[in-house]
Amino acid sequence: MRVAVYPGSFDPFTNGHLDIVRRAANLFDRVLVAVVENDGKRAAFSVHDRLTLILDCTAGIDGVEVHAFPGLLVDFMRHADASVIIRGIRAASEYDYELPMAAMNRQLYAGAETVFMPAAVGYTFVSSRLVKEVFRLGGDVSRLVPPPVLEALRRQVTP
Amino acid sequence: MRVAVYPGSFDPFTNGHLDIVRRAANLFDRVLVAVVENDGKRAAFSVHDRLTLILDCTAGIDGVEVHAFPGLLVDFMRHADASVIIRGIRAASEYDYELPMAAMNRQLYAGAETVFMPAAVGYTFVSSRLVKEVFRLGGDVSRLVPPPVLEALRRQVTP
Amino acid sequence: MRVAVYPGSFDPFTNGHLDIVRRAANLFDRVLVAVVENDGKRAAFSVHDRLTLILDCTAGIDGVEVHAFPGLLVDFMRHADASVIIRGIRAASEYDYELPMAAMNRQLYAGAETVFMPAAVGYTFVSSRLVKEVFRLGGDVSRLVPPPVLEALRRQVTP
Amino acid sequence: MRVAVYPGSFDPFTNGHLDIVRRAANLFDRVLVAVVENDGKRAAFSVHDRLTLILDCTAGIDGVEVHAFPGLLVDFMRHADASVIIRGIRAASEYDYELPMAAMNRQLYAGAETVFMPAAVGYTFVSSRLVKEVFRLGGDVSRLVPPPVLEALRRQVTP
Amino acid sequence: MRVAVYPGSFDPFTNGHLDIVRRAANLFDRVLVAVVENDGKRAAFSVHDRLTLILDCTAGIDGVEVHAFPGLLVDFMRHADASVIIRGIRAASEYDYELPMAAMNRQLYAGAETVFMPAAVGYTFVSSRLVKEVFRLGGDVSRLVPPPVLEALRRQVTP
Amino acid sequence: MRVAVYPGSFDPFTNGHLDIVRRAANLFDRVLVAVVENDGKRAAFSVHDRLTLILDCTAGIDGVEVHAFPGLLVDFMRHADASVIIRGIRAASEYDYELPMAAMNRQLYAGAETVFMPAAVGYTFVSSRLVKEVFRLGGDVSRLVPPPVLEALRRQVTP
Repeated sequence: MRVAVYPGSFDPFTNGHLDIVRRAANLFDRVLVAVVENDGKRAAFSVHDRLTLILDCTAGIDGVEVHAFPGLLVDFMRHADASVIIRGIRAASEYDYELPMAAMNRQLYAGAETVFMPAAVGYTFVSSRLVKEVFRLGGDVSRLVPPPVLEALRRQVTP
Repeated sequence: MRVAVYPGSFDPFTNGHLDIVRRAANLFDRVLVAVVENDGKRAAFSVHDRLTLILDCTAGIDGVEVHAFPGLLVDFMRHADASVIIRGIRAASEYDYELPMAAMNRQLYAGAETVFMPAAVGYTFVSSRLVKEVFRLGGDVSRLVPPPVLEALRRQVTP
Repeated sequence: MRVAVYPGSFDPFTNGHLDIVRRAANLFDRVLVAVVENDGKRAAFSVHDRLTLILDCTAGIDGVEVHAFPGLLVDFMRHADASVIIRGIRAASEYDYELPMAAMNRQLYAGAETVFMPAAVGYTFVSSRLVKEVFRLGGDVSRLVPPPVLEALRRQVTP
Repeated sequence: MRVAVYPGSFDPFTNGHLDIVRRAANLFDRVLVAVVENDGKRAAFSVHDRLTLILDCTAGIDGVEVHAFPGLLVDFMRHADASVIIRGIRAASEYDYELPMAAMNRQLYAGAETVFMPAAVGYTFVSSRLVKEVFRLGGDVSRLVPPPVLEALRRQVTP
Repeated sequence: MRVAVYPGSFDPFTNGHLDIVRRAANLFDRVLVAVVENDGKRAAFSVHDRLTLILDCTAGIDGVEVHAFPGLLVDFMRHADASVIIRGIRAASEYDYELPMAAMNRQLYAGAETVFMPAAVGYTFVSSRLVKEVFRLGGDVSRLVPPPVLEALRRQVTP
Repeated sequence: MRVAVYPGSFDPFTNGHLDIVRRAANLFDRVLVAVVENDGKRAAFSVHDRLTLILDCTAGIDGVEVHAFPGLLVDFMRHADASVIIRGIRAASEYDYELPMAAMNRQLYAGAETVFMPAAVGYTFVSSRLVKEVFRLGGDVSRLVPPPVLEALRRQVTP
């Protein structure tokens, strides 16, 4: 049995993330979406809300679980018996950021193998940051996030 | 009539920006320099000061107007009947940042066409951030910004 | 009147090229698709065939003309009274190749202004080289090139 | 059962390739090393020699097979019931080359999923091209290729 | 006599930094490790602690000195009679960030020559930021920093 | 005494190359411009002509010598007692090509230290390839190459 983790902030979970989860679920027996709890970034959604939303969005996909982890990714992986780290890549420049992390994780945990999956052609421009920015300014993001996330974004602003 | 917007923080307006405005004014009937009001970054100059400085620096160039906009760029464009977004590019790595924004703007507003203009050879190293940093540390930036901006930088520090 | 050239080998003309031509025709009064005659590359189609195909593919678009030029692009531009060079860009790495050409052209002809247009999201992976390679190996390229080019590819192989 | 292909010229197979094969064999049930037969490049070793060498080098690794294919990768994949394409990546710039290929393969075969595996830290500088160049000029490549490949390189030059 | 500066935050000094210092000391008569005092970033270690640690780590290397400077790097260079700036580079994308700085420094001080040294193959993934992040989350960084820095990291957290 | 080599094809030597030689001569005691004899590329100028031209162009610069070498760069370096390799860099993307070569050279010769020098702002677009292409098509390259090279280019074409 091969277990992969898909770590990230997912603040919020986008259609790009969902696409990676779907495709990863075809490649590995279990895919653990793993929300980083403690990354020092200010989040729009609480970890709890993000977990709930991801659960909701990935409900129909076999082999997918949703977790949060507070510390080192490799500690979570050891604990969960996972050996693969999945990272979506949208542009070459991200790779220079991702490569040191992959090497570091491997150095910290010999079993940790990072695989990069290219964003689907239609999602290369979708990021949580851009979704939040566009939504905050009143733009339509309904094609960029799953319905539960769209509702959550709307609830957050509505009084 | 073809109307282009040149959006940015312009905090402050540099000789690199001025060069792009001059060259863009040759390509389109009207060029609207558009100061982003609401980008969450802490600015050295108020939006009002930036508008005044850009007006001053671009006074002699035909077809150039200066605006501020509070929300989505594409909303401003619809309002101003503009279809072209101009972005200066200094290095390839900026493109990976710019491309998703261009795709997003096109997704939000089918008419929005982003064109990238390369920085002139002599301005590839000039950025607002570097200008502010060098000036703050006492370096000479007189060849990097137009005279009104240089004066404004000096006024800001002098008590 | 603003005249732009869109230079290239177009060996063959793809849906990605056609998309750039259509969008460029909205930005400039005339767009001259300019086939490089003398670029030292071995071509799959003769210059004459490429001109015919591009004419065929762009027949319905206002303001578009198709030319071939044998020498320096800037000489053709001077002759055609064109001041703008259009280049499509699919990925950041192309920019490092394109930037020196843009600077060179500007150095050779002060009026030459290069503008880069990002490939539409659905065409970032379409290139003449890849189209030819896939077709040669029996793959389906019908969604990647306009119908006249598809027919020409088929004619070329059929005895 | 998940079947992955690892396509390439492997002219010759290096320690970098071997490392990817070993790691890929941990991720998928079967890994088919697939030598491109017909890529228009002039090869130092015949396809037959390359197959023999790769078989020799990967003999001890479970689940690894060695094939050659003459046409489209996706046709080979359909035939072999494979859904995953493995590509090693050494530097970010390769990604801009690989991404269109991944998108093209997915367009040609909906089931084709490309995953990128970063070269191990010690192999980022090892490529078939550089190995051949250094060897041709008399340099020591014994740490860069598996022993059977080293012997083959030596046999090739020795009269 | 040729004097080089190696400027940085060094918060904290890593094995990657130490490797660059060692190699730079072979190239130039004096190498001045120069801690930026005033870069607006929140530091984990005080400038005083960083100076002490770097002194400790570089004690045995001939020609190396350790300094702090409060303002412009070029002012420090003029003062120290230095003409060379050393920058370690781990990935191509850093170059797009470094190039404008190099051009700016040269514009501010005609004598300032920046040379880039590639990180050794084993250190391309080591950065102060990643070291701090991994250490904060309980990971083992003993192979990534010199022993005095490891001790300092431990002292900082221990009550 | 520190000896640096500046290897390349120099086909032909450009103002960009000359600028690097001048600046390198300030950094090292001797700078050996080293023409690669045997790189498999078809050259416009013979090795002999290139040596003569470089000698002519660098005549007034102290500490500069001109050599050709037939084999491995590191063998030439050992022979010439050189420890530094100088490479000019014009754009970030070149770095991904240069880094493996630097690592390889270091692997082949522990003493080999590659330093990268950024092209001066005015020369980032000058390459031998572009110079030849523009000259071949009748463009003015007089600002891109030293006078002896310009004359040689003219002699080559004149019957």
